[in-house]
Amino acid sequence: MAEASRISEARRDAVFARWVIFSPARSRRPTDLKSHGPANPSPGPDDGAPKPSCPFCLGRESECAPEIFRVPAPDESLPWRIRVIENLFPALRREAAPPAPEDEEPVGAGECAVRGFGFHDVVIETPHHEVRLWDLDAEGVRDVLLAYARRVQQLAEHPAVKYVQVFKNQGASAGASMAHSHSQMLGTPFVPPSVTSRLNCMKEVFERSGKCSLCAVVSKDILVSETHNFSAFVPFAASYPFEIWIVPRQHSSYFHETDQDKVLDLAGLLKSMLQKLCKQLNDPPFNYMIHSAPFGLSSSCLPYTHWFLQIVPQLSVIGGFEMGSGCHINPVFPEDAAKILRKLTAQ
Amino acid sequence: MAEASRISEARRDAVFARWVIFSPARSRRPTDLKSHGPANPSPGPDDGAPKPSCPFCLGRESECAPEIFRVPAPDESLPWRIRVIENLFPALRREAAPPAPEDEEPVGAGECAVRGFGFHDVVIETPHHEVRLWDLDAEGVRDVLLAYARRVQQLAEHPAVKYVQVFKNQGASAGASMAHSHSQMLGTPFVPPSVTSRLNCMKEVFERSGKCSLCAVVSKDILVSETHNFSAFVPFAASYPFEIWIVPRQHSSYFHETDQDKVLDLAGLLKSMLQKLCKQLNDPPFNYMIHSAPFGLSSSCLPYTHWFLQIVPQLSVIGGFEMGSGCHINPVFPEDAAKILRKLTAQ
Ligand SMILES: Nc1ncnc2c1ncn2[C@@H]1O[C@H](COP(=O)(O)OP(=O)(O)O[C@H]2O[C@H](CO)[C@@H](O)[C@H](O)[C@H]2O)[C@@H](O)[C@H]1O
Ligand SMILES: Nc1ncnc2c1ncn2[C@@H]1O[C@H](COP(=O)(O)OP(=O)(O)O[C@H]2O[C@H](CO)[C@@H](O)[C@H](O)[C@H]2O)[C@@H](O)[C@H]1O
Repeated sequence: MAEASRISEARRDAVFARWVIFSPARSRRPTDLKSHGPANPSPGPDDGAPKPSCPFCLGRESECAPEIFRVPAPDESLPWRIRVIENLFPALRREAAPPAPEDEEPVGAGECAVRGFGFHDVVIETPHHEVRLWDLDAEGVRDVLLAYARRVQQLAEHPAVKYVQVFKNQGASAGASMAHSHSQMLGTPFVPPSVTSRLNCMKEVFERSGKCSLCAVVSKDILVSETHNFSAFVPFAASYPFEIWIVPRQHSSYFHETDQDKVLDLAGLLKSMLQKLCKQLNDPPFNYMIHSAPFGLSSSCLPYTHWFLQIVPQLSVIGGFEMGSGCHINPVFPEDAAKILRKLTAQ
Repeated sequence: MAEASRISEARRDAVFARWVIFSPARSRRPTDLKSHGPANPSPGPDDGAPKPSCPFCLGRESECAPEIFRVPAPDESLPWRIRVIENLFPALRREAAPPAPEDEEPVGAGECAVRGFGFHDVVIETPHHEVRLWDLDAEGVRDVLLAYARRVQQLAEHPAVKYVQVFKNQGASAGASMAHSHSQMLGTPFVPPSVTSRLNCMKEVFERSGKCSLCAVVSKDILVSETHNFSAFVPFAASYPFEIWIVPRQHSSYFHETDQDKVLDLAGLLKSMLQKLCKQLNDPPFNYMIHSAPFGLSSSCLPYTHWFLQIVPQLSVIGGFEMGSGCHINPVFPEDAAKILRKLTAQ
């Protein structure tokens, strides 16, 4: 299919069982409506001064919701390097009564409602307003990842929390409302829909082939970079142009159980992938999400759950086809995106 | 849960089995990044003249990809009222060889690739550049819906087409690249992921309760409007603020099999819902999608498949939480949105 495949091809992945249409010709269509380019404000030079109105800046801690923990700066030159705080406008509330198990039984025609219990936290990645995550050194990025892992571990101990979604929004088109570099996590009293469908798909693959969908060796075509412990690649059926997955090479179900030394390896790779995207796509808005396993999974499910980190640059708007069908149209073949990203040197 | 529910609540629907978090407090969060307001260009008065560069305008037919069929104007004052044409930049191509059944067998770890065969058509809803769908009279909207149905019926006859996704993008933030009022449809050689998960969910509900998820009487709280044949309501677990579903009141699996006279009823309701959204939300960008059944479904599946039309105004950007978890955060409770929409009189 080599040549023809450059025209148009549909692929289904083995993790979410999602079909994606690859159609390079689509990127040539004209428009008479103004397009939505990246809306990232170009960060100016960091003079160290807090931004007048930003509660995430050093010295403005009192304007934030309560702190959960902080990570000190290594040389103690600053009162903190990372802060994990409560979200002041939480989608789910720790004060709400956790749902009782029977609350989750479907009512009526299968619908179901539970109280809005859960945890919604913010990770402030740096005290400085203008510093981006990938401006930190590998140790700095590692400490952010370790802060995620530590907070996920705390939430895992709460009996009513079923899953923690760790995510980052960078840039307004990626949903961010705050410019200061941060990420978030939501501990939910239910297993979210994409997690359920991911597990169902990976289970089916495992039952059919005896293999974990993410343990397979990554084809050279789509590989971007590899370290001792992690592979970074453009997935075979990427839903978004220049989407990247960072996957532990050794089977592992839970992100938060990753060894400390491996986290440094991950941090270096994440930093370099963000640098590459920033360079190639001119500082695009992006999201990243950590896909881990729900808590309390039976041990029979562990062989087919494999955590990974998904990075998605936001380059185009989703239309009705994607919303209705769940199938994305991607104008860039994974092999082509990977080739470009492979060649780029990190800054 | 009456009072507390106004604080925060999570709900799962019985059609997609998707969890949604309702959190009115979220709408009060501040932002220091510029937000993405509706980007619809305000349509000016229609002087009947074609826009210099728009190939969808009357008189510019030769700039379009080939016509499939046209619907004449009732009084023959114009050469056409609606045109169904090929998409000039199709995501899937009718010239590609349809995939052989064995092509769909998963390769390797459950991944799968097929040639980009399929149909991608555009429905030009009016010859006039400045006329919006809901500016047409009910008969005009009916004819657009009948054009969808007629084209879906043609595609259903192709043995390799498994599903047709009918959708409309209105406004740049909803993905539209062309301002001239139009919709699209894609006939795919696979059943798209959201269709599979919708059918799985509705099947499960049916097996447990003996009922079709969409046949239940709609609660007065969420109802917006009802006609003899259709209900329009804000779904119990709406993923988006002011989302509306229009559902046939009598069980029916396929949109394209709707009786002609019922289509006029549907057209009137669709027009009035779009008018209400336009009035309440100040001409928002929006998408609508028709969710129908895949072709060639075994008769045992028909009792639990029920087609509907989903309208989604695009009011906010999706962030990493939604992308990662598949769970949306909606700041507006369906009951509150329905109450507002119920009270509005159509223009
Ligand atoms: N003083 C303070 N103390 C503590 N917390 C504070 C604070 N001031 C603001 N916050 C919180 O900081 C967070 C900043 O988050 P982001 O910029 O990543 O996006 P946000 O959550 O607003 O919404 C994006 O992400 C969510 C989840 O993906 C989507 O629902 C949404 O549409 C998208 O815009 C907000 O959640 C806000 O509530
Ligand atoms: N002269 C001509 N003759 C025939 N056809 C012509 C034409 N000139 C343009 N076209 C076609 O007209 C269509 C107009 O469609 P829309 O404005 O609804 O959105 P578009 O498909 O561009 O993308 C949106 O919808 C798709 C599907 O949801 C998303 O993938 C995408 O991100 C989003 O921007 C385009 O598909 C274009 O190819």
